[in-house]
Amino acid sequence: MKKQLTGKELIEFLETTSPAALKEALEYIHPADILDAMEDYDGDFFNLLVRIPTDILAGILEEAEEEDKGELLGLFSTDQKVDIISEMASDEVADMMEHFDDDEVNELISSLDEEKAQEIKQLMSYDPETAGGIMATEFVPVNAQMTVKDTLEYLQKNGEDAETINYLYMLDPDDKLKGVVSLRDIVMSEFNLPLTELVNPNVVSVPTNMDQEEVAQLFRKYGFSAIPVVDENHKMLGIITADDVLDVVVDESTEDFERMSALSHSETEYLDSSVMTLARKRIFWLLFLMISATFTGIVIQRYESALAIDGMLILVAFIPMLMDTGGNAGSQSATLVIRGMALGEISIKDFFVVLFKEIRVSLVVGLALSVVNLLRIWMFNKDLMLGLSVSIAMFFTVIIANVVGGTLPLIARKFKLDPAIMAAPIITTIVDVLALIVYFSVAMKLYNPA
Amino acid sequence: MKKQLTGKELIEFLETTSPAALKEALEYIHPADILDAMEDYDGDFFNLLVRIPTDILAGILEEAEEEDKGELLGLFSTDQKVDIISEMASDEVADMMEHFDDDEVNELISSLDEEKAQEIKQLMSYDPETAGGIMATEFVPVNAQMTVKDTLEYLQKNGEDAETINYLYMLDPDDKLKGVVSLRDIVMSEFNLPLTELVNPNVVSVPTNMDQEEVAQLFRKYGFSAIPVVDENHKMLGIITADDVLDVVVDESTEDFERMSALSHSETEYLDSSVMTLARKRIFWLLFLMISATFTGIVIQRYESALAIDGMLILVAFIPMLMDTGGNAGSQSATLVIRGMALGEISIKDFFVVLFKEIRVSLVVGLALSVVNLLRIWMFNKDLMLGLSVSIAMFFTVIIANVVGGTLPLIARKFKLDPAIMAAPIITTIVDVLALIVYFSVAMKLYNPA
Repeated sequence: MKKQLTGKELIEFLETTSPAALKEALEYIHPADILDAMEDYDGDFFNLLVRIPTDILAGILEEAEEEDKGELLGLFSTDQKVDIISEMASDEVADMMEHFDDDEVNELISSLDEEKAQEIKQLMSYDPETAGGIMATEFVPVNAQMTVKDTLEYLQKNGEDAETINYLYMLDPDDKLKGVVSLRDIVMSEFNLPLTELVNPNVVSVPTNMDQEEVAQLFRKYGFSAIPVVDENHKMLGIITADDVLDVVVDESTEDFERMSALSHSETEYLDSSVMTLARKRIFWLLFLMISATFTGIVIQRYESALAIDGMLILVAFIPMLMDTGGNAGSQSATLVIRGMALGEISIKDFFVVLFKEIRVSLVVGLALSVVNLLRIWMFNKDLMLGLSVSIAMFFTVIIANVVGGTLPLIARKFKLDPAIMAAPIITTIVDVLALIVYFSVAMKLYNPA
Repeated sequence: MKKQLTGKELIEFLETTSPAALKEALEYIHPADILDAMEDYDGDFFNLLVRIPTDILAGILEEAEEEDKGELLGLFSTDQKVDIISEMASDEVADMMEHFDDDEVNELISSLDEEKAQEIKQLMSYDPETAGGIMATEFVPVNAQMTVKDTLEYLQKNGEDAETINYLYMLDPDDKLKGVVSLRDIVMSEFNLPLTELVNPNVVSVPTNMDQEEVAQLFRKYGFSAIPVVDENHKMLGIITADDVLDVVVDESTEDFERMSALSHSETEYLDSSVMTLARKRIFWLLFLMISATFTGIVIQRYESALAIDGMLILVAFIPMLMDTGGNAGSQSATLVIRGMALGEISIKDFFVVLFKEIRVSLVVGLALSVVNLLRIWMFNKDLMLGLSVSIAMFFTVIIANVVGGTLPLIARKFKLDPAIMAAPIITTIVDVLALIVYFSVAMKLYNPA
């Protein structure tokens, strides 16, 4: 990367430069870098911030972590807050306000000008994880009467605040979306060409209530840099840009990682989280799963008297291996299906395809593991009966694990639950109980043939 | 989404429309949609494809799954192949060729024109998972002598093939990167303004060998839609665009999900994979982990004679719960640290911070779980000794699990291994062995006080 100012240099620069010179210089420094530099700053924050022009402050606030935004903004008076918010993109303001309490939101909204206030309230009414929740309202509308020249002139006057001007959207007099024109095509065309000659009428748009994960799938499929959002009458309401989608994809993956590992969600990063926050993230599901695991104990206790018989206790030594393998096989299936669903490759209607596939895969995998097990126990323990008990149990455990692991996420989705929720641990718990039942049943049959 | 042609309608349209009319109509249909429509087509593929203009074919090929590209291209003669490849973006060609065998690559490259051939060979020389491996070479260079008008005229002549014209890069006579200008700023400026007035000299660029995950972190940090790639002399070589990064983020997450669940990597999607491919993905690590789990058996066998003593066998009933909880606690820590590393929040230098944090968190979590356990066993089993054995073992198991889970990924990275590799299962195996040792040691001390 090109050598830039270090954080310390940047802070010094902010502290010592005159406001006018600062305004010009900061235009070429990314707000994310200013924010980085301020992270280690231990002087008076407010005195530093008031030196920075409002539009740059707005940029810095947009870049800050969700949980820091309120604190940063809280340093300013209501008038200053309104000035800063007016410079921020509408979607960023709405997202930020989701984290404020009602009084604060009402105070800020009532201080904004009517139009902006209306816009923010509208944006806040959408579910934050839908297209409406991630869209910005600053797009560039054009109409069928415009030429290339008109458009360029219009952009010079009105393009300043748009989220992107790389795509312009042709609307009819009722604001219904009729097509899209790229700035690229405009720039590469003759001045007097009517826009209608350039417009692509076959524009992909999304409804406000589309899940953000589906929106991300469309971006991936088409490689778009922006997608328009429309209401049920096809009236255009906003746009979603690729950089917002990058965050969506990262957030959704992080959530799936957390859910699959039985972690509760929190928005702070690991190193910034307190010990108690981290403990809270983990404790609930651990307790839940620990108590669920009681069932495994019940199964073992049922066979306790049988195990006490001479020669049977050796069976206990293979319980952990059987359980671990079942857990691993189950989470392999679950991971493949959960990831396939997250990427839009697998949906509920594929239930029986997945079920049938998992059964066939488990027959192959189960057979391989069983044979290896049988040979190993035969060689090292010289105990065919033990080998058969473990191997037969292993075979059925793998089948159970793959079927449960592969179908549970689909069943969860069917019941509107998140497919990833504690997938691996809960599958492990279910598979453990079933594996123990199979193991002891098989062993009892083999050791005490009727 | 706007009503578009269904797949069947599109195929019919492709089959019946004259080539000239097709050329015009297909401009407004996204290649990804054409590819989708063809997925269920059971007629003669080649006869359908030859009707499609070469530039659209190139687009379709770019959209196809990695493993289908060779098959699609294989339908054509060498001359046709060269025509199609010449229309594709250089980075897409290089990626595609990575999957071809050497003879095929040599044949194709020797048929391309010299400049393109050179470019492809250069691109193929970079590690596919670095900035060089994902960059395209089609960017728009500008120089310090140009005005806004010059630039617009230059774009009209030379912008056609660029990956994006939303950013233009100012190079010095040695092709060294000096700054970036956005098309937005150009469009919004006076014709006779020198470009130097608009250029941002503080341009963020990346070296060819930067890991693609780090590149993605920069895109997330700055919200860029493109980043230039430079060599060690700061000579500009190519650009990476946000849509490529979206794929990087998805691929890296998928890889981490697979690795954490002990799955080998394969590029085919679940529903498209054969039973044998899916079995192969799973079997290697399952076998490895199954054999590793032998150690748990060894520990149990060591205590077998002790367990045979009256009243001690009940200890066995709590082994699964202890192991599952240890596994879950360990994968919670591992997930947080692995995800933190993937997003650039945690690095090796934070080793002791993580270690210290995990120890403190584990004290809180371990204590909570132990107390619940003690109360539960006391209430239901009325056996204080058993309750104490399980609870003390639980406490230490959680500490061990969190410490192993939190630090192992960092240790793996230190040794240049992927931190995610089989994280949860291998941590489970290690924690299982240690938990069993602690459990039996504690129980022996309590049941047989010296």
